Amino acid sequence: MDTLNSSPITFSGRALQLTSSAIREILKITERPEVISFAGGLPSPEGFPIPELRAAFDRVLATQGATALQYGRTEGYTPLREWVAQDLSRDGMTIDPEEVLIVSGSQQALDMLGKLFIDPGSRVLVEAPSYLGALQSFSLFEPQYQSVPTDAGGLIPEALDAELTQDARFIYVLPNFQNPTGLTLDLQRRQALVERCAALGLPIIEDDPYGELRYAGEPQPSLLELGRPVGATVIRLGTFSKVLAPGMRLGYVVAPRDVISKLVQIKQATDLHTATITQMAVYETVRNGFLRTHLPKVREIYQRQCGYMLDALQRHFPADARWTRPQGGMFIWVTLREGIDTGELLQRAIARNVAFVPGAPFYASAQAPTNRLRLSFVTVPEDRIRTGIQVLGELIGPGH
Amino acid sequence: MDTLNSSPITFSGRALQLTSSAIREILKITERPEVISFAGGLPSPEGFPIPELRAAFDRVLATQGATALQYGRTEGYTPLREWVAQDLSRDGMTIDPEEVLIVSGSQQALDMLGKLFIDPGSRVLVEAPSYLGALQSFSLFEPQYQSVPTDAGGLIPEALDAELTQDARFIYVLPNFQNPTGLTLDLQRRQALVERCAALGLPIIEDDPYGELRYAGEPQPSLLELGRPVGATVIRLGTFSKVLAPGMRLGYVVAPRDVISKLVQIKQATDLHTATITQMAVYETVRNGFLRTHLPKVREIYQRQCGYMLDALQRHFPADARWTRPQGGMFIWVTLREGIDTGELLQRAIARNVAFVPGAPFYASAQAPTNRLRLSFVTVPEDRIRTGIQVLGELIGPGH
Repeated sequence: MDTLNSSPITFSGRALQLTSSAIREILKITERPEVISFAGGLPSPEGFPIPELRAAFDRVLATQGATALQYGRTEGYTPLREWVAQDLSRDGMTIDPEEVLIVSGSQQALDMLGKLFIDPGSRVLVEAPSYLGALQSFSLFEPQYQSVPTDAGGLIPEALDAELTQDARFIYVLPNFQNPTGLTLDLQRRQALVERCAALGLPIIEDDPYGELRYAGEPQPSLLELGRPVGATVIRLGTFSKVLAPGMRLGYVVAPRDVISKLVQIKQATDLHTATITQMAVYETVRNGFLRTHLPKVREIYQRQCGYMLDALQRHFPADARWTRPQGGMFIWVTLREGIDTGELLQRAIARNVAFVPGAPFYASAQAPTNRLRLSFVTVPEDRIRTGIQVLGELIGPGH
Repeated sequence: MDTLNSSPITFSGRALQLTSSAIREILKITERPEVISFAGGLPSPEGFPIPELRAAFDRVLATQGATALQYGRTEGYTPLREWVAQDLSRDGMTIDPEEVLIVSGSQQALDMLGKLFIDPGSRVLVEAPSYLGALQSFSLFEPQYQSVPTDAGGLIPEALDAELTQDARFIYVLPNFQNPTGLTLDLQRRQALVERCAALGLPIIEDDPYGELRYAGEPQPSLLELGRPVGATVIRLGTFSKVLAPGMRLGYVVAPRDVISKLVQIKQATDLHTATITQMAVYETVRNGFLRTHLPKVREIYQRQCGYMLDALQRHFPADARWTRPQGGMFIWVTLREGIDTGELLQRAIARNVAFVPGAPFYASAQAPTNRLRLSFVTVPEDRIRTGIQVLGELIGPGH
């Protein structure tokens, strides 16, 4: 026999519910070079500091090779934890390195938080729409989702009342340049959110992969910063994926010590620890303030790319289409007129070698609007942005 | 307020059951340099190919930096999957790269297999004793463990009858130089095991981190190789941790395509993918047959170290103590006379700056023998092995 057998296997209930992700299938199609893809969530490789990372790996292996290649602490490489704690400490808020856990990308934090909080049937609050990857992670632990209403300003804090939040384990929020909408919560909503959650005893998971990629508007304080004085429990997720490079798979969790302590036990069972060598190389890269000179260059790339797409939308999309104008990050969210099904639009777009992600998979509830779509602008050259948006505009047709 | 709040949080049932691992607490103590520790499971840094890995990282970043730093496929870096498939293919058995999934160390494979197979209360078969880290991983999914009896030859295949295996989701086995016993299954037991499992429709998880570290006896065919012709479902776990370096966190799963397909969906939700850069650097290191010259050097280190400890045990341990004589790997398993409690022995040993791991945590059942202990010999210099074993011999006292 030359192939592996597949005798009867009994999978777990959670595994039986798994279906291939819609985005995953789309991304396979968009690997063809002729496709103009606005579907991906890849950061721009223009922003990767290749020479600096190359030098960092080399220095680490030249001077601390045996440490870099050995097992490490589950909590993470101590100097990197200290760096993160220092970087996040602000006037009036000191983060202790013991409140920091290094993880293998933020996605791993979502998995571990699912393990930490979710029993089958537990209520979990998410924005409508929310990050698809978080919904996938949490879903393995079989929660019952409760969508929190949003409007043009993002999540509506006033919607969080005792009934909606009853028995909820946490609320999951992306306050900056949200994936998929690109929306940012203003200070007033942030303040209202942390105050309500404090009053309701509802932990907040603040996922902020894009916060450093702000190219317009004023930086806002994090939910972690605002939450502390009012007694909210905030678990903050950060990542080096967008400020350095995602292929390193490095992120971190900042949380109260009792949460970190449980997460460390969970991480030990999950993958022992994150690769020592990547942690040390990233620390070596950022320790002397490299990001202060690097980030402005990255922001400039994203701002330029965002501008290309906003121009093209203005030129080629019908008058009755609406879209967000992000102050940072990677995504624009488009709302087409009622009656257009963006799933069906995608089929026609792919036939003309243009791809995007329809809006429906970003909603936890079955009643998802069908006329939304997400556009990523960061890795596509200007002329292809224009061509791709023009094609989509033609397929959508003139407005009413 | 200057510290993070901890307002009331409701953890999941599985998180509430977590307790700090015994081994983890021991390892903390053994970080003191004056402690002679036989407790660790660290590979010898003498065996790390630092110059080769340094050159590999440098070549990858110099020539393929943008790829190495970008997101990658969940399945793993294609050339590395092809290399693993090729490396494991034998006369009469061809592994297809599509049957290989790259993971962030074998520990991650255990977590994902727990997600794939275990519902609360599912029966799971493990050797008595078994790898503690696997028990920790699986336990997060709340299985009901069933211990399979072992003797001086390891797992007893004849014990696997219809009653013992009824409704079991899988059996977890370490066939080579088992952790913690150091025992290896002979060919006859392997053959009997795969035949029984095929007949019972019981999937086998074959965990083989140490197989390449054989320094005595004849190499045995893997359960994967033996299982195919008889129709057994074998899921094989391998790792680069012991043949290259654990700080890279790189392992792999070989399994039937339907299992790999589900594991890919699970891995996407768990951490998207394993770091691209470490996968590419490891591929760059091993692609031209490096392990053929490197592994004999590693085996020689382990054989030498094992010899030091066997000599010291012969010299200093009482006549009524028994221990295994491993043909490879990192561990010796000691059985002391009835009545000695190795947990209590550890307290006295630590007071004299010697550490080991008591046997009880390696048993899934509550009725664990209390007179066993695990010794790791690979990272301790010869004179300290002799001193440490002498101290333990004194504390155990003369035999009867």
